[in-house]
Amino acid sequence: MTTGPVAASRSKTRGVVLNLIRAGRTVSRVELAANSGLTPPTITQVVRELMEYGLVVEVGRGTSTGGKPPTLLQLNPQARYSVGVLFERNICVVVITDLAGRPVARTSFHGTELLPPEQALPLVASRVEALLGTAGVERDKVLGVGLVSYGPQDRRAGVLLSPQPTAVWLGYPIAPKLSELLGMPVMLDNDAAAAAIGEYWLGAVEQGSTYGCVYMASGIGGAVVSAGEVYRGSSSNSVEIGHISIDLNGEECSCGNFGCLENYAGPSAVIRQAFATDGLARRLGLDPLGIDCLADFALIAAAAADDPTARELIERSARHLAVGAVTMATLFDLDLIVLAGSSFAAAGPTFRSLIEREVQRRCFARRAHPVRVVQSVSGSDAAAIGGAVLVLQSELAILDPPRPA
Amino acid sequence: MTTGPVAASRSKTRGVVLNLIRAGRTVSRVELAANSGLTPPTITQVVRELMEYGLVVEVGRGTSTGGKPPTLLQLNPQARYSVGVLFERNICVVVITDLAGRPVARTSFHGTELLPPEQALPLVASRVEALLGTAGVERDKVLGVGLVSYGPQDRRAGVLLSPQPTAVWLGYPIAPKLSELLGMPVMLDNDAAAAAIGEYWLGAVEQGSTYGCVYMASGIGGAVVSAGEVYRGSSSNSVEIGHISIDLNGEECSCGNFGCLENYAGPSAVIRQAFATDGLARRLGLDPLGIDCLADFALIAAAAADDPTARELIERSARHLAVGAVTMATLFDLDLIVLAGSSFAAAGPTFRSLIEREVQRRCFARRAHPVRVVQSVSGSDAAAIGGAVLVLQSELAILDPPRPA
Repeated sequence: MTTGPVAASRSKTRGVVLNLIRAGRTVSRVELAANSGLTPPTITQVVRELMEYGLVVEVGRGTSTGGKPPTLLQLNPQARYSVGVLFERNICVVVITDLAGRPVARTSFHGTELLPPEQALPLVASRVEALLGTAGVERDKVLGVGLVSYGPQDRRAGVLLSPQPTAVWLGYPIAPKLSELLGMPVMLDNDAAAAAIGEYWLGAVEQGSTYGCVYMASGIGGAVVSAGEVYRGSSSNSVEIGHISIDLNGEECSCGNFGCLENYAGPSAVIRQAFATDGLARRLGLDPLGIDCLADFALIAAAAADDPTARELIERSARHLAVGAVTMATLFDLDLIVLAGSSFAAAGPTFRSLIEREVQRRCFARRAHPVRVVQSVSGSDAAAIGGAVLVLQSELAILDPPRPA
Repeated sequence: MTTGPVAASRSKTRGVVLNLIRAGRTVSRVELAANSGLTPPTITQVVRELMEYGLVVEVGRGTSTGGKPPTLLQLNPQARYSVGVLFERNICVVVITDLAGRPVARTSFHGTELLPPEQALPLVASRVEALLGTAGVERDKVLGVGLVSYGPQDRRAGVLLSPQPTAVWLGYPIAPKLSELLGMPVMLDNDAAAAAIGEYWLGAVEQGSTYGCVYMASGIGGAVVSAGEVYRGSSSNSVEIGHISIDLNGEECSCGNFGCLENYAGPSAVIRQAFATDGLARRLGLDPLGIDCLADFALIAAAAADDPTARELIERSARHLAVGAVTMATLFDLDLIVLAGSSFAAAGPTFRSLIEREVQRRCFARRAHPVRVVQSVSGSDAAAIGGAVLVLQSELAILDPPRPA
């Protein structure tokens, strides 16, 4: 959320103009002035700087509205690149995006959850280096790395405040250490916030929308974006909908709250319910040590193939998730909810229709405006792509990327 | 929430400067430039305009830091006034505040809930006129009226979207009609949002805080303020915590959701529970037709006097409210929760300590920062005072108050 004082810094101005050029695909200086509220001389000056940096190029002339046809500007997407790393309990996804936020390369791998940080982070770093090599992206064109993971976090310090995957990670300076290994700036952020802002950058959400993202991978998180900015709250540990209580009689959660949504609707809960259902696990060949993400889970396939028991478990998860989605829509007054993360990539349609029905029936502001529910355009890579986008969006980094000594 | 483009309008600049002068009590032009990020020439120009309007006065000189001691500026609180009207199911509160947001007169009355709009609004208008007369406030110094009430609302059109107190109010243009009767601009807003912003203006909340307000009068509402701005969402119908579900097995609420917090913790629910408790209503002399607000309710007095049954009912309400408060703090990542509204004015201490204990134990971001819970500094007038403050804050109104023809 932007705050009070009026005078915007130079870099903020550049970021606003760059973002308008990106969003507009091709745009004239006159349109930029109209859309930004900045004066024509400021636009001329900022565009000159962006062209000097090679970020923006002229691409011919538009239609005349009387006088000389205006010169059109376009982003130069190959001018810079960004890396997004999703660090999950059981999977890592690495993507490289161009300056427009479009993925140009990706890889994913399992196994970091078994390693202490001193071994896991060099593995992540080597995968990033390898992907840059494969994609033929020069290091000095890389603005930095957006490392995204679950909360709570100390975002500024780049430290996880959660004992996940294991207790040694609690308080570990994950972003500074990865930065040291890669010799690049690394920003830590929340996975759901990244997924949400990625949707916006990739044009899947209207500019003025106030929308929420429900992010389900191995756990359940959330984020809210209003007019293109992530709602941050006091410490960027906001919208943790997996840990709101939906059941007065619920049991205590490891987070300290009770009756937490994640323990009813999350992948671990659904798998627990599946193993507690007579014969189901054996019938479907479920692996008790399998990965706790619905996307990788035979239950989804069985539900899709109309196994009534499997289907009931998935629908139960969706109904519980809908309770959280209604709470989120009622508190943040949302007009859209995006479902993102690997669990929705596979089972999305079931969740989407059920959650939309409940939100439209129960959300407090439904008399004021409709609330739609959609699936992410980025599938299970949403958070990693969003991590790269968060680096792009950090307009200081765009023009003055700190470089390793 | 403020949005993208950088260039601020003139009126926004004036509003920022006026607000800094208000908040600083006495302040120099140099300090204003430093605190606003505006250039010294802009500050000089804006201060000149504010002095021409009589809103700001010079009040002597500060301490020299080498050169000439700086001239100090101060708000002229008697330059303008604002009216706040709380329109509740069963009570109306009218306050007049000066330009600093300090109440200079107030009145309250019951009975509008029994009247159709055509009779209720003339009654409200006559009370406003009478209070202006009693207080000796000239009409042409009144910037306007902040009319605050429950949601949902169409804030721009000034229309209630709720069938409260009776069905005829649903869709009724309450703000335009009151404006017509009074010959003054009337802004409609949410009661909890008003209470929250009032706390900020009256200096009870730190400038950078992200805080929530739980507002309990005849119902339960909420609001969130971040860096001095109310979180609005898509249609200003946000943070309706009375209508989030806290109980998976709860019954359907008239709002369309089920297991709604208000039906467990709200005044009507507590009174219902009291009448369902053997002998309690008779013992305490409760009036079944009494006003459904805990502040006016003998139960509070009995609980305070250590009646164990009464006390258990109040504490049960507080425990349920704490569930909603934890959800609000976890989703909005709050560092402070303010309890406002008439129900807390009386029973506040019990609620405060119990809610604070639960929030500090269960809120997701508690490892990142503490979360405090406090009572409103404005007692049961918080929303009405906040309504007046919302008019003051609307910086356009401050310098160019629309006048009746």
